[in-house]
Amino acid sequence: MRILGIDPGLRRTGFGVIDVDGPRLLYVTSGTIVVPADQPLAQRLKVILDNIREVVQSTHPTVSALEKVFVNANPASTLLLGQARGAAMCALADSDLLVHEYTALQIKKSVVGNGHAAKEQVQKMVQHLLSLSGLPTSDSADALACAICHAHVGPLTDRLKLAGGLTANNASRLRGGRVLG
Amino acid sequence: MRILGIDPGLRRTGFGVIDVDGPRLLYVTSGTIVVPADQPLAQRLKVILDNIREVVQSTHPTVSALEKVFVNANPASTLLLGQARGAAMCALADSDLLVHEYTALQIKKSVVGNGHAAKEQVQKMVQHLLSLSGLPTSDSADALACAICHAHVGPLTDRLKLAGGLTANNASRLRGGRVLG
Repeated sequence: MRILGIDPGLRRTGFGVIDVDGPRLLYVTSGTIVVPADQPLAQRLKVILDNIREVVQSTHPTVSALEKVFVNANPASTLLLGQARGAAMCALADSDLLVHEYTALQIKKSVVGNGHAAKEQVQKMVQHLLSLSGLPTSDSADALACAICHAHVGPLTDRLKLAGGLTANNASRLRGGRVLG
Repeated sequence: MRILGIDPGLRRTGFGVIDVDGPRLLYVTSGTIVVPADQPLAQRLKVILDNIREVVQSTHPTVSALEKVFVNANPASTLLLGQARGAAMCALADSDLLVHEYTALQIKKSVVGNGHAAKEQVQKMVQHLLSLSGLPTSDSADALACAICHAHVGPLTDRLKLAGGLTANNASRLRGGRVLG
C-alpha cells in the first residue's frame, strides 16, 4: 500500500508519500506546494489541483488521506480553506484515488499518542517513524503524519467495515473529535 | 462572447450559458447539477467537477462567471460550501476559462435593478431578458443571472482595468457588498 497524505491550505499545501510494507513504514517523498498569493483565486486553486495531480502521476499512490479541518473563528478564512480543500479533494478524486479523512486530533493521537501534541512533537515523531536523517518541515510532517495515521487506522477501519457495514466516513466519525466532512 | 454562469452549492449547482451579440443576450442552455447526498465528500465534489467540465466541453464558453458566496452563520456549512465552490472553480480553471466573480448583490442589482430582489423577481427578469417561453428554475435562473451580470458589468470592468490597472477582482471589491474571494 502506498499512501499519499495531504495537509491542505490556500497558501501552503503539504504532501507526503509513504509505503506500508507489513509493519514497516517507508518514506517515499514529501514537500510543500507554495501557492502564489497575488493570483486570482481560481488560479491559486488550479496550482493546488495541478501540483497534487503531478505528485499522483509521479508517485502512483494506491490510496490517499486528507487532514480534516477545524472550522476557523473567522468565516472568511473558513471559506477560503474550504475552497483549497475542495481543490485538493478534486485532484485526488479526479485521479480515481479513494480519499480517507482524519482530524488533526486523530492524526496526532495515532502518530504521537497524544491528540494535543505540539507541532514539533509531530515533526520529531514523523522523523523517527520514517527513519529520516533530518527533521521534516512542518507542512511535510503534517502530510506525512496524515499518511501514517491511515497506515495505522486504515486496516482497523476496513475490519470495522467488514464486521458492521460501517463506511470509512462513519468509522472516523465514531472516533470523535469535532469532525467536519 | 459566450458566458458560462455558475451558482455553486454542494447539494445543487446551477449552470447557465448565454451568448452576447452586441446589446442582445441569447439563451444557450441551463440546468442543475444535483449532487447525491449519500456519497463521500470527495465523490460529491467529483460530480460537480465532472459535470461542469462536461458543460464546458459541450458548450465551449469563452469566459465564466461565478456567484460569490456570503459566509454562513454555521461554520460547518461555510466549509462545505467552500469545498463545493472550490470544485466548481477547479473545473473552470482546469478548462482554461477566466473566472469572474460577482456577489448576489451585484448580480441582483445588474439583472433586476435592486440588490435585494426576491428569488422570484430574478427568475422573472431572467425569463424576460432571455425571452424564455417558461420560467427558469431557481438554480438555472441564478446561474443565468450571474452570466447576465458579467455581460453587463464585464465590459465596464475591462475598461476600468485599461484605465487604472484594476484587476477584475479589485473592481468587484470596489462595488461593495460583503465580498469574499
